Formats: sequence, C-alpha cells, structure tokens
Amino acid sequence: MIAVKVSEKSIRRLSHYARCLRLAKIRGEFIMTSQQLASNCGISSAAVRRDLSIYGEFGKQGSGYKVDDLLTNIQNILGTTDPPPVIIIGAGSIGCGLMISGLTGTGGYEYSAIYDKDPEKIGSLCGDMQVRSTEEIPELVKKKTEVIAVIAVTSGAGQEAMDMLVAAGCKAILSFTLEPLKVPDDVEVRYVEVSTELDVLTHSMRRKEVLK
Amino acid sequence: MIAVKVSEKSIRRLSHYARCLRLAKIRGEFIMTSQQLASNCGISSAAVRRDLSIYGEFGKQGSGYKVDDLLTNIQNILGTTDPPPVIIIGAGSIGCGLMISGLTGTGGYEYSAIYDKDPEKIGSLCGDMQVRSTEEIPELVKKKTEVIAVIAVTSGAGQEAMDMLVAAGCKAILSFTLEPLKVPDDVEVRYVEVSTELDVLTHSMRRKEVLK
Repeated sequence: MIAVKVSEKSIRRLSHYARCLRLAKIRGEFIMTSQQLASNCGISSAAVRRDLSIYGEFGKQGSGYKVDDLLTNIQNILGTTDPPPVIIIGAGSIGCGLMISGLTGTGGYEYSAIYDKDPEKIGSLCGDMQVRSTEEIPELVKKKTEVIAVIAVTSGAGQEAMDMLVAAGCKAILSFTLEPLKVPDDVEVRYVEVSTELDVLTHSMRRKEVLK
Repeated sequence: MIAVKVSEKSIRRLSHYARCLRLAKIRGEFIMTSQQLASNCGISSAAVRRDLSIYGEFGKQGSGYKVDDLLTNIQNILGTTDPPPVIIIGAGSIGCGLMISGLTGTGGYEYSAIYDKDPEKIGSLCGDMQVRSTEEIPELVKKKTEVIAVIAVTSGAGQEAMDMLVAAGCKAILSFTLEPLKVPDDVEVRYVEVSTELDVLTHSMRRKEVLK
C-alpha cells in the first residue's frame, strides 16, 4: 500500500477529489462523470482524467465513476481510509476555533484532544471538549501509533511545543506558528502561514495596479 | 515600484525574511548577518545571500545587514510597506479566532472589520471588535481602494460570500472554505486548506511506515 512516491501536487489534487466525492455522497449522488468532478473541484477535466488514469481503472469513460468506489480507491492511494487522530496543542482562539469549526470534517479527520500548558485553561471547555494538560501528551502519543499534532500556540512558544511533541514520538505536525521550527529529519512538519498568504496577495494586487 | 515579476517561492521567502526582521526589531537587534537571518528563518545561508543579491545591495558581506534598512527594502519589493486592511467574512470560530489571535501581527497586517450575515451575530463582539452586517461590505470596499478579504464562512456558503465580495470590487481574497470558488480572472484567490495539509502529512507518514 501507498509505497509509491506521488508528487505533492498530485496528493493535493487527490485530496480535493476525495473532498468533492465526500460532499457528493452527502448530497446522495452515486455516479459522477469526470467533467462533474472537475467542475466541483475547480480542476480541469483533462487533469482529472489524467490523474485517474495514472492510478488505475476507476470507471468507464463516458458512463462516469461510482462515487463510493472512486472515493475508496483515492483514500487507499492517499492512505486516508482510516485517518489518524488529530490533536491540537494550544487552546487559544485559533486552536479552539479549529476544534469547534469542523473545518476538517469533509477531510475525514477528527480532533481527538486539545492540550494547553496554562493551568487556567486546563479543564476548561473548547466547544464540548475539555482542555487537557500538555503533560498528558507523551502518554497519548505512545498509546496511538499515529497522531497528527496541530501546533496553535502563541508566538514564541512554537519550538517548546514542537520539542515536546518530538520527544513524545510524534512524526507529523501542522504548525500555525509564525516562527520556523527545528525538527529531526524523520518528523514531517507543514506550516499554515496566513501572513505569508496575505503578502502574496498584496504583492499580486499592487503589482497589477502598477502594470495597468 | 514592484512591477517586477517575482516567483511565488521568492515572495514567500521574502515574506519570511520580513517576519524574522520584524521579530529581530522587537528584540531590539540592529544588525543581522545573512547566517543569522538564515538560521532564524529556517532557510539556507546560500539561499538568503542569493535572494538578497538578486534584489540589490542591501549590506556589505561580512559586516551584516542593518535590520531596519533590510526590512524597508524587502517591504518595498513585496509592496507591503503600508499593508492593505484585512476584513474577515464570517464571525464563526475560525473568523473570530483569526481576529483575536493576532496571528498576522508580525506580518504587519491588521484586521479592520469582521462581517456576518446572521442577524444574531451582527452587533456581537469578537474580541473587542463588533460584528457588522455583510450588507455594509460594498460601502467599505468602495471607500478603501485596496482590501484583502478573508472568507471564513461555514461550508457551503463560500461562493455566496465570494460573489458578494467580487460585486463589491474586492480583488484579493484568502479563503478558509472547503469548496473551490469561482472567480473572475482579475480577482486573486488563495486557499488555506487544513484538511489537505493533513492528507499530505498522513500520506507522508504512512508511506514512510510502509517503506521501513
């Protein structure tokens, strides 16, 4: 299973297809053509057909794909059939916001716990989830073989959270912190960088203004 | 000014440098070598030197860069010297979380308003900012020539929010919604896709497990 090296761009597209197919399932749709999938995902039909042909025979051209089968196959490639639990470190406005938002619902992920080191936050509620002490993290990571941790601590506290997660054995981390984090080679870390996205938008908008 | 075409990767690196320099300023540092900048940003020294040499003479090799001057120059290239105001559409847990978190503080951005269409939310507080009606958006966008809008509405309501922003004349949008949005060519939209980042992490983690 999933020992194939797939480019990040392909993984992102497959992730989008999976999300669109989950939404289609919720709407009660059973069959979807590659054109419909393309249109729902905002990706060209040619790219959809190429992707699906690379990863095997998922349906017959013209008659569409079975939503359920296609979703199962794509989840197999991604390795997300049974997605790992996600824990959140930092019960501030972003950490709690993520927990409550259900933003990852159609991604198939569920938040299994939220942690903070602030004694005043430990025991309080984020939505209907009680905030736990970060001291409980090592225990959890050891019990579950696979966990993804989301770092949503305040600026400056990112490396401390990261070091604790690494020491506990966590291998996959998504960080909302502003500072770059030092990690061992066997730990995968990705960043959600809101201010960098804003910089890219500003540059693009003002460049267009100048070029007019 | 900024009529130069710079690749997205370069813009992202420049954005990181700017953030590191702002943090250095806060710490009261006046001079920074390219090695320090590289180490603070988690980018190789070679890449830092190459980037800085492309965009002009910012300092003398060996003696380091003046933090203030380098930041000014980089902000000039990015077009972020005087960053545009950012408005948030959707006063739910993510929208409010962003507003309160100050996540974009060291990016130099400030949230100028938060909007919702739900009458129960209009007038309530997110942090110390009062939620306004989305009906006020056209007025705001017309008054300010440049605005970045962050879409943080619930799943399924993204396109409606986008259409309203486009009609109001907004040209730069960052979306946290799960669905791809249709926009005219002259509007730039970027996505923060938490569940796709989680898929990339899961794929990577499980692939390593299989390859062991």
